[in-house]
Amino acid sequence: MSVKFDSEPFIKVKEGTFRKIIHTQNLMTVLIDFTNGPWNSPDPPHSHPHEQTAYVEQGDILFFCDDKEYRLKAGDMYAVPPNKSHSIQLISKRARIIDNFTPLREDFLV
Amino acid sequence: MSVKFDSEPFIKVKEGTFRKIIHTQNLMTVLIDFTNGPWNSPDPPHSHPHEQTAYVEQGDILFFCDDKEYRLKAGDMYAVPPNKSHSIQLISKRARIIDNFTPLREDFLV
Repeated sequence: MSVKFDSEPFIKVKEGTFRKIIHTQNLMTVLIDFTNGPWNSPDPPHSHPHEQTAYVEQGDILFFCDDKEYRLKAGDMYAVPPNKSHSIQLISKRARIIDNFTPLREDFLV
Repeated sequence: MSVKFDSEPFIKVKEGTFRKIIHTQNLMTVLIDFTNGPWNSPDPPHSHPHEQTAYVEQGDILFFCDDKEYRLKAGDMYAVPPNKSHSIQLISKRARIIDNFTPLREDFLV
């Protein structure tokens, strides 16, 4: 069992992207704050063998998947099966997304 | 791939408890709104073979696990390994928790 408080610091992934992670053996939740929107274009489409679900906690984003575009805002959710290409684009200046993965994104733990 | 918009209705689980679910094959995210706080006592301690992570989106709760008590608020997260007894108690009138499970909580899909 573990708890991570709001007061604990974020890890800076790159300029304008910060994250905080909690996980069990096969389940990872990644709290991501983006602060450098709006973006002129989507992030590069990417895929991974991990299953993913996401909850938009704050902000406005475009979500691209299956050649479709969805405008998402706080309270919206999406799910992505393994190896499915997807990307997002910030419309607002800031956004917070709760990303969940199984199995663990080991690349996030290094 | 699937999207669930904020505008889509919640399922009423019981008085004061509403949820909305999105999932892939092995990963489930459950958006839970509680509207009947504060509670005089915790919900009954429970456990399940599923791994669980959670993000407190809104509200103040007590989280009980491992004979410890944590006061959690918006932005806090917790993780619970399989078969570990845990419970929560609402301190605020309302709370929103993003609960994540692997494997799926099949009992939530019936």
